[in-house]
Amino acid sequence: MDVEDKYLFFEGSEKKAEIVVKGQQFSLLDDIADDFWTELVQCCNAQILSSIRNDDCKAFLLSESSLFVWRDRLLILTCGNTRLVHSVEFFIQKIGMDKIQQVIYQRKNEYFSHAQPSSFGDDIKLLGQYVSGKAYRFGELDSHHNYIFHQDNSFQADKLDKTYELLAYQISQRASEKLTTKGLKAEEIRQFLQLDELFSDFALDDFVFDPFGYSVNGIRGKEYFTIHVTPQASSSYVSIESNINLIKLASNFLVILAPQSFDLLSFNEFDFARLTDEFIPKSYVSKSLVNEHLSNNYSVCFANYILPQQAFTQATALDLAGENHAL
Amino acid sequence: MDVEDKYLFFEGSEKKAEIVVKGQQFSLLDDIADDFWTELVQCCNAQILSSIRNDDCKAFLLSESSLFVWRDRLLILTCGNTRLVHSVEFFIQKIGMDKIQQVIYQRKNEYFSHAQPSSFGDDIKLLGQYVSGKAYRFGELDSHHNYIFHQDNSFQADKLDKTYELLAYQISQRASEKLTTKGLKAEEIRQFLQLDELFSDFALDDFVFDPFGYSVNGIRGKEYFTIHVTPQASSSYVSIESNINLIKLASNFLVILAPQSFDLLSFNEFDFARLTDEFIPKSYVSKSLVNEHLSNNYSVCFANYILPQQAFTQATALDLAGENHAL
Repeated sequence: MDVEDKYLFFEGSEKKAEIVVKGQQFSLLDDIADDFWTELVQCCNAQILSSIRNDDCKAFLLSESSLFVWRDRLLILTCGNTRLVHSVEFFIQKIGMDKIQQVIYQRKNEYFSHAQPSSFGDDIKLLGQYVSGKAYRFGELDSHHNYIFHQDNSFQADKLDKTYELLAYQISQRASEKLTTKGLKAEEIRQFLQLDELFSDFALDDFVFDPFGYSVNGIRGKEYFTIHVTPQASSSYVSIESNINLIKLASNFLVILAPQSFDLLSFNEFDFARLTDEFIPKSYVSKSLVNEHLSNNYSVCFANYILPQQAFTQATALDLAGENHAL
Repeated sequence: MDVEDKYLFFEGSEKKAEIVVKGQQFSLLDDIADDFWTELVQCCNAQILSSIRNDDCKAFLLSESSLFVWRDRLLILTCGNTRLVHSVEFFIQKIGMDKIQQVIYQRKNEYFSHAQPSSFGDDIKLLGQYVSGKAYRFGELDSHHNYIFHQDNSFQADKLDKTYELLAYQISQRASEKLTTKGLKAEEIRQFLQLDELFSDFALDDFVFDPFGYSVNGIRGKEYFTIHVTPQASSSYVSIESNINLIKLASNFLVILAPQSFDLLSFNEFDFARLTDEFIPKSYVSKSLVNEHLSNNYSVCFANYILPQQAFTQATALDLAGENHAL
């Protein structure tokens, strides 16, 4: 894949893993040296770019997305052609399953799934060597969907342990052009995304990729958010993940990004239906609506929304001179 | 892939090729022996099951979809893991580009694109060795879309040369259960699909696959239709293609199949907007709406419709004991 293709067809869609350890035995935040995390992210071909920390959390910005470490758990998201399951395998081998309470591995439908080094089936086959679990698909195969695998043991998630994902696809031409502007500074992107208003008092760590692309981690006590922007037209994608309520913030992001489609995913948001009814603009129509209570006590909701089209657009002409690896 | 997986995760989505020859020089219908077609379909790992013909057209039912041959053109559709472009290459090598007026190669988004032997990019790279052309994508990358490659030369399609495709995804549980009934006879499927009413006076040739799946070709003079049914829940798919107006028949099929989503594709239907407004039930919402006039004088319209969801459904539990090749 030549350089141009790499940026024209970058796979923004993340794989995600969350691992909860037996916190009374040791602290991931205090007892593990940074070398360990460096090696862990290298296992999926990512690198640590920078990090911030407070008393409760350390947030690493990666060449492909983010890693968050708290005392009793870690959360890692990686995009592009990384094979995240190898980092999970590294963690399990180094730390040992006897110190692990719960492994959750998640993967969403990709733009270019045929260009990925593995499928979800491949990944959980590998995980199955270490972890006995269950797997689900949220959403139909022919549209946006999320695969979730989780360890099936006595672990029960706290009902207050909430997570939210807002995944925006096909952002507006205006947003795409702004975010692909050459030489754009991090400060300008923070302003464009209104981060200071929407996540006030969070410590931020961000990075502008060359020629474009943006990642930011934010932490405030145990709270976190992370945003990853793949702004290029035709495969634009913005992922926002947080343990603060993104459904309440959704309308702000929908105004800023004006995506043609977006997904909402929540863990243990028991008020999902009421909140989406209150906060999602009626211009969007719900295509998928899935809820499942997992045996690890996470109630997971998934919704995909689309913007109905009224007018015809032109087809997208493809560049046959290029390598077209991602077609 | 074991037998069960093969049927649980069968890729119904077709690749399609249409080739127009210089009809004054020879007739594909009369001057080419059946052995040639047998060999041609073997090139993409399909087989001829049966055939019917009239004075204008010969229709072959294949182990993976269909082949139609008229005097001046052929149309071939293949599903599953066939690599149709190899049949196109065979035709070009045997007949010669000097006798060919136009090559069109089309491929829609697949359910399991990572399990395909090639991508559209791979296919047109191979075709590019023989044919100079243009390629387009109709529809967004993150939702249903069609790739179309066509030869770019002096060929101009007749404005009356119309083709229609109606592609139904996620048919109702009722339709899926009916069409996966063990021992179902062809006659029962014809009745269920109301073929006698909707395509009266067509000569039919059909086949019921084991354990399920159904293909039918119909011809009446130069008119044709072909329907392929992949009925299994979770990846159900019914494709209908014809040169008679399927937009006018759409509401019938939507009542029979009740799909959660469907695509309409037309070549040279200049009344697409008015017809869809008149014949598509308002319960469906248009997600994509694309129109492009190709330089070969085909005006192509693509629309994807979805049924908005009001109620939550459960997630789909995945069988981890199986091979999960298609996940």
